[in-house]
Amino acid sequence: MRARPVQQESLRSRILDRISDFAASTPARFAVIVFASLIGIFTILFSLPVATTSGERAPFVDALFTAVSVICVTGLSTVDMATYWSPLGHVFVFVGVEIGGIGVLTVASILGLVISRRLGLRQKLLAAGDANPLRIRKGPVSESQAVRLGETRSLLATVAISVLVIEAVVAALLFPRMLLEGVPPLDAAWQSVYIAAMSFTNTGFLPTSEGLIPYGSDWWFLIVLMLSVAFGAIGFPVIYVLRKTWRHPLRWSLHVKLTLVTFGLLTLGGAIAYFILEFDNPATMAGLGADQRILQSFFISQMARSGGFATLDMGSLDGSSLLVTDMLMFIGGGSASTAGGIKVTTLAILFLAAFAEARGVDDMEAYRRRIPQDVLRLAVSVVLWGATTVAVATVAILLITDDVPIDYILFDVISAFATCGLSTGFTAATSDGAQYVLAATMFLGRIGTVTLAAALAASTRRQLFRRPEERPIVG
Amino acid sequence: MRARPVQQESLRSRILDRISDFAASTPARFAVIVFASLIGIFTILFSLPVATTSGERAPFVDALFTAVSVICVTGLSTVDMATYWSPLGHVFVFVGVEIGGIGVLTVASILGLVISRRLGLRQKLLAAGDANPLRIRKGPVSESQAVRLGETRSLLATVAISVLVIEAVVAALLFPRMLLEGVPPLDAAWQSVYIAAMSFTNTGFLPTSEGLIPYGSDWWFLIVLMLSVAFGAIGFPVIYVLRKTWRHPLRWSLHVKLTLVTFGLLTLGGAIAYFILEFDNPATMAGLGADQRILQSFFISQMARSGGFATLDMGSLDGSSLLVTDMLMFIGGGSASTAGGIKVTTLAILFLAAFAEARGVDDMEAYRRRIPQDVLRLAVSVVLWGATTVAVATVAILLITDDVPIDYILFDVISAFATCGLSTGFTAATSDGAQYVLAATMFLGRIGTVTLAAALAASTRRQLFRRPEERPIVG
Ligand SMILES: [K+]
Ligand SMILES: [K+]
Repeated sequence: MRARPVQQESLRSRILDRISDFAASTPARFAVIVFASLIGIFTILFSLPVATTSGERAPFVDALFTAVSVICVTGLSTVDMATYWSPLGHVFVFVGVEIGGIGVLTVASILGLVISRRLGLRQKLLAAGDANPLRIRKGPVSESQAVRLGETRSLLATVAISVLVIEAVVAALLFPRMLLEGVPPLDAAWQSVYIAAMSFTNTGFLPTSEGLIPYGSDWWFLIVLMLSVAFGAIGFPVIYVLRKTWRHPLRWSLHVKLTLVTFGLLTLGGAIAYFILEFDNPATMAGLGADQRILQSFFISQMARSGGFATLDMGSLDGSSLLVTDMLMFIGGGSASTAGGIKVTTLAILFLAAFAEARGVDDMEAYRRRIPQDVLRLAVSVVLWGATTVAVATVAILLITDDVPIDYILFDVISAFATCGLSTGFTAATSDGAQYVLAATMFLGRIGTVTLAAALAASTRRQLFRRPEERPIVG
Repeated sequence: MRARPVQQESLRSRILDRISDFAASTPARFAVIVFASLIGIFTILFSLPVATTSGERAPFVDALFTAVSVICVTGLSTVDMATYWSPLGHVFVFVGVEIGGIGVLTVASILGLVISRRLGLRQKLLAAGDANPLRIRKGPVSESQAVRLGETRSLLATVAISVLVIEAVVAALLFPRMLLEGVPPLDAAWQSVYIAAMSFTNTGFLPTSEGLIPYGSDWWFLIVLMLSVAFGAIGFPVIYVLRKTWRHPLRWSLHVKLTLVTFGLLTLGGAIAYFILEFDNPATMAGLGADQRILQSFFISQMARSGGFATLDMGSLDGSSLLVTDMLMFIGGGSASTAGGIKVTTLAILFLAAFAEARGVDDMEAYRRRIPQDVLRLAVSVVLWGATTVAVATVAILLITDDVPIDYILFDVISAFATCGLSTGFTAATSDGAQYVLAATMFLGRIGTVTLAAALAASTRRQLFRRPEERPIVG
C-alpha cells in the first residue's frame, strides 16, 4: 500500500524531470516544438464544423491562420472574427490567446531562468575548467534538477496569478462602462472578460462586429485598454520586479529601468508623430478637438507597439504615419512579454552602443552600470533576424501579389512579424498563398525571436586559442 | 638672394602644416567644411548664366541640387542634365565629379591614415600613461608632422595616378565602340572621357539625352561600364593593395578579402533576384532572351550598388525589385570609395557578429583573423546613422508631398542617401521643398557617413574607472 503512491510520485516526477531536462538542454527546440504542437491542435479545433456560425467546416487556410494568430497573440485575421466563429469558436479563441500569451511569457521566463543559471554555472565552472555544465550531470535526480523544477513551478504560479489579477481588474473596470452604454449585463460580463484577455495578452480581437466604435472617443474605455496593453507589453520580468519594489525605484534592475524609459519615450514620441502627421488628414483627425487628438495619438502610438486595437482606419492614415507605425511595430514591447517585435531593450542597446562610440569610451553604460559587449552582439543578431524575416516575407508576397501598394503589404508583414495585428485591410483581402506567408511570418516573429535570443544567449563554446587581431575599415 | 626662397618655402610649409594640423586634430569637421565650401563654389558656378544652354540664370534650387549631386557624385538631377547645361556647364560637372570623387576618396584615405596612426600612437602611448598624444606635441615642426605631410602627399599622388590610369583605360575601351555606332570622332572622344569619369566616380550622369539607349543591350559597352563602376566602388584601400599584391591573394589584408567577397556575393545575389523577380515583367525583361536577361540582371545589380546608370526604367520595375534595389543601394560599395551607402564591410561585420553569436564563440572571426569588438560598435553606429537619416528624410518628404506612392519616395531617398542616383522619376518631378530635403540627404549620406565613421573611430576618451556590470534581457 505504501509502495504505489511513492512509485507514482516517482513516475510523475521522472516525466517532469525528463521534460525539464529536455527544455534545459535544448530550450529553443523545446519552445518551437511546444508552440508548433499548440498551433496544430488549434488548427484542428478551428476546423470543427461546430466552431463556425454557419456550421460548415472552415477552409484549412482560415483555420490555420486563426490558430497561428491566436497562439501567437497577433490579432490579424482572414475572416470576420466576431461573426464567423460560433460561441464555441470564441471559447477556443479565448483559451488560445491565454495559452499563447501566458505560454510565451512563461516559456520566455523559463528560458531566461535556464539560461541565467547556465550562464551563472558556466561562469563558476569555467574557472574550474569546464565548458558545458549541463551535459556532465550524473545520477537520476541530482539536486540541481530539483531546484530547477521548483523554480519553474513558482515562476509559473507567479505568472498565472499576475495574469488573473490584472485581467480581473481590467474586466471590472470595463464592465460598468459597458452597462452605461446599454449592453445587457450578461453580454457586458463576457465581453469585458474577453476584452480584458485580448488587451493584456496584446492580441487585439474584439467580441462584436462593431468593434471599438461605441467607445472610439471614450477616455475611460481607451485609457483602461492602453494600461492593460501596457502591462502585458512591458514584460513579466518587469512586472515581477515592480510588484516587489515599486516603492523603491533605486533598487530596480537595469533591465527594468531600460525597459520603462525606452517604452515611455517610444509611446510619447509616437504620439507626437501621429499628432503632427495626421493633423490635416480629413479621414482621421482633422475634424477632432485638441483633447481627442491627444487621446487618439497616444492610443495609436500604444497600440502600434503590439496592442493591435484600432479606433481609426489604418488604410486611411497618411503614408508618413504608416511608415512611423512600421517602425513602432517593428520595435514592439518589452522582453518576455505578450508583445512582439525586436523589443525595446534591443533598440536601447543599439543606441547605447552608438552613444558610447560617439563619446569615445570603451564601455556601454546606463544607469551607472556597465553592459557587457556580448549583449550588443545578441541585439544585432535579433535585429538582423527581424529585418531578414520581414524582407524575405515582403518580397515573397510581392512576387505572388499584383496591384497592391507596397506600403500596405509592408505594413501587414511587419504587423505579422511583430504580432501587432493592425492591418490596412490587405491580410483579409489577399490570396491564400500570401496568407500562408503571413502565418509563417507570425510564427517566425513570435516564436523565432523569443527562442532565437534564448538559443543564442545559451550557446557557448570553448575557444581553445585566439586568432591574431586585424581591423577592417568600416563605414 | 638665398634668404627669400627659404622663407617662402617655410611660409608655404607652415600653411600646409597648419591645414594638416587642423585636419589631424578635428578630421571630421575639416572634411565637412571642405565639402560644404566645394558645394558653395559649385552652386555659384552653376548659377552663372553662361552655364545654361538658355543663357538664363538657373533657379537656385536647381543650381544647389546639381552642385550637391555633382560633389557628392550622386547622379540625381532636377533638370535634364544633357540639355540643360551649356558646354561650359558640362565642364563644371566633369571637374566637379572628379573633385568630388577623388576628394572623398582622398579625404577618407587621409582620415583613415590619421586615425590609424592616432590609434597606433595611442596604443603605444597609453602604455606610457598618456591619453591624447596629438595634443601634447611641442615645437613648431615636430618629426611626426613632417611624416604626416609626406604620407599625405604620397597618398594623394597614388590616388590621382590610379584615377587617371583607370579612367584613361575605360575611355580607350569605350571610344572605338562609339565610333562603330557612328558617333563623330570628336564627339566620341569627349563622350568616352566623360562617361569614363562618370562611371569610375560612380556618378552616373550621361552626356546625351538618349543616354544608354544606343548601347542598352551591348555586352562590350555595359561590361566596361560595370568594371569601371566596380573599380571605383571597391574603394581606394583595396585598389592600393591589389595593385601591389594582386598575384598573392594570401597576402591580402582582411579588409581586402572581406570587401571583395561581400561585394561579389551582393552583386551575384542581386543579379539572381532581378532575374527571378523581373522574369514575367513585360515592361522590363519578359521579352528578352536568356543571355540578355543575365546581362541586364547583373547590370542593375551592379548599378544599384552606387553606379547609378540604368538601361531599364526604374519606375517600371516590379515592387519587389524596387525593395531589393532599396536594400542594395543602402548597402552600397566599399569603404573609402567613390560609392556610397553604409559600405559592404559594415554589413559583413554585422553578419560576422551574428555568426559568432550563433556559434557561441566569443570572438568575431574571418579569414583566420579576430576582429576587435569595437569594430562592431562602429558598424552599428553607421547603420543607425543611415537608417535614421533615411527615415527622417522620408517622413519629411511624405509630409510635404501628396499622391506619390511611398515606395517611389523611399527609393529616391535611399538613392540620395547612398549617392546611387537611380530614380523612379520622383526627384525631377517633385516640389522645391522635397528637392532641398533630398539635397540634404545626399550631403548627410556622402559626407556624413565618411566623416562619422572617421570621427567615431578617432575619438577616444580615458576611462578612469569601470562601472559594475549588469546584463539586461534582449530580444
Ligand atoms: K497583437
Ligand atoms: K551615383
